[in-house]
Amino acid sequence: MTKQELFENIKHKQSFLCVGLDTDISKIPVHLLNEEDPIFEFNKQIVDATKEYCVAYKHNMALYETQGAKGWTSLEKTIKYINENYKDVFTIADAKRGDIGNTSSMYAKAFLENLNFDSITVAPYMGEDSVMPFLEFKNKWVILLALTSNKGAHDFQTTMINAEMEDQNYLYQEVIDKSRKWGTSENMMYVIGATRAEMLTDVRTIISDHFLLVPGVGAQGGSLEEVAKFGMNKECGLLVNSSRGIIYAGVGEDFADKAREEAQKLQLEMKQLLEIYL
Amino acid sequence: MTKQELFENIKHKQSFLCVGLDTDISKIPVHLLNEEDPIFEFNKQIVDATKEYCVAYKHNMALYETQGAKGWTSLEKTIKYINENYKDVFTIADAKRGDIGNTSSMYAKAFLENLNFDSITVAPYMGEDSVMPFLEFKNKWVILLALTSNKGAHDFQTTMINAEMEDQNYLYQEVIDKSRKWGTSENMMYVIGATRAEMLTDVRTIISDHFLLVPGVGAQGGSLEEVAKFGMNKECGLLVNSSRGIIYAGVGEDFADKAREEAQKLQLEMKQLLEIYL
Repeated sequence: MTKQELFENIKHKQSFLCVGLDTDISKIPVHLLNEEDPIFEFNKQIVDATKEYCVAYKHNMALYETQGAKGWTSLEKTIKYINENYKDVFTIADAKRGDIGNTSSMYAKAFLENLNFDSITVAPYMGEDSVMPFLEFKNKWVILLALTSNKGAHDFQTTMINAEMEDQNYLYQEVIDKSRKWGTSENMMYVIGATRAEMLTDVRTIISDHFLLVPGVGAQGGSLEEVAKFGMNKECGLLVNSSRGIIYAGVGEDFADKAREEAQKLQLEMKQLLEIYL
Repeated sequence: MTKQELFENIKHKQSFLCVGLDTDISKIPVHLLNEEDPIFEFNKQIVDATKEYCVAYKHNMALYETQGAKGWTSLEKTIKYINENYKDVFTIADAKRGDIGNTSSMYAKAFLENLNFDSITVAPYMGEDSVMPFLEFKNKWVILLALTSNKGAHDFQTTMINAEMEDQNYLYQEVIDKSRKWGTSENMMYVIGATRAEMLTDVRTIISDHFLLVPGVGAQGGSLEEVAKFGMNKECGLLVNSSRGIIYAGVGEDFADKAREEAQKLQLEMKQLLEIYL
């Protein structure tokens, strides 16, 4: 998907919501456990119920990998279902990969080509040649970790560094500043945790045009209004993720309806924020 | 596996060799393509041929993930085969994972419990709470990325930082210094690339007792002698990985014999180095 197409979808749906398919077999409604592939069935019904209110789906790889080969099959079926039925959603493999060049090429092939995700989250620690192989696919995206939403973000990401760039203090800013030259705002996004919304102002001084994937709204405690206020740019430039708050909103047979309601609530908030800040 | 058991295996085999099972279906001998599971068959024969000369096997996850669910099955079969037949080898899931706490827990379960690897490589960028969940399994190990063997290691890992520790300059040193308090030398190792063997001296001033996983000998150009000279400690403290140089030493029906020869060559070098430096 191109940046322009993503922006068109945001305007059309009046939403910058990303629904996180962190599908945990121990948390899905029990009646689904009789299905041949409970995880796929859950994902399918969540996607069918929420597609009008979101522009992206993020798949948390860990949840599929704990299920082994079977989990991988559920993932393959889910992404195929989305790609075949809903061309107006952006798909994210939340995999946080990154390795030496030829290994990164293999991960890129696995997620961007074989599974045909629009994007993959990548960890920056190993530097340029670990990220570049993910940038070689047309209309596909790298979403690079910059400032994450967890407590451990303070261990290294906000370490003060002696950087090449003036007025720059933190490792995560150096990660953004250096890596933005590896690609463009047409193929790179950044993960910026919502729990640090005020830092979005600093981020926007380095990258005004890039999309940001913002986790941490909802269960992790970030404010949607602050994210929009400090982070939105002229093409919205935001994908805000909510996982558990939506997909586990209900635990009964009406789980998909409950998920729809939660997604719609967020979409309505986003609509207002788009009217104010876009 | 405990540290003591690993050291006993090193002394017994007079080897600190780790064989990297970077099994690429496009590079394995063509006659194996008729097998039901060519990747497993290749791995099995490589393991059978090299087991006397190495103390560890490292599995590169990317190579399995490019094959989808089928690749995951080949991986499951390989690790099961090793665990059932060769209890004196240390197994490494080279996965470079790391995510928010509950997601890291899922990855830990996938690799250390379900697949029953002895260890997993983890990326440090997301900090303490992204690493801790991997340390909750008895006699299992985290192998944390510190200084990798690729060119991109210079982008961030060797960035000068304003650290809490005196006499400390680089991010990778801060990663080691901070993270060593998260576990012990009984459950944490570090990745230190062999292409920077002289830096092993600096590493050993921070962590004298930890094992180091050293990639980059062979195809990537590092010197085994220098690694031993600068990195060995009183329990050896080194696992040196070689992947392509061993597993693709032959391309014909005798590929396993060729792999054995290459593994044995390295083992003989290591035996001499153990006599000098241990």
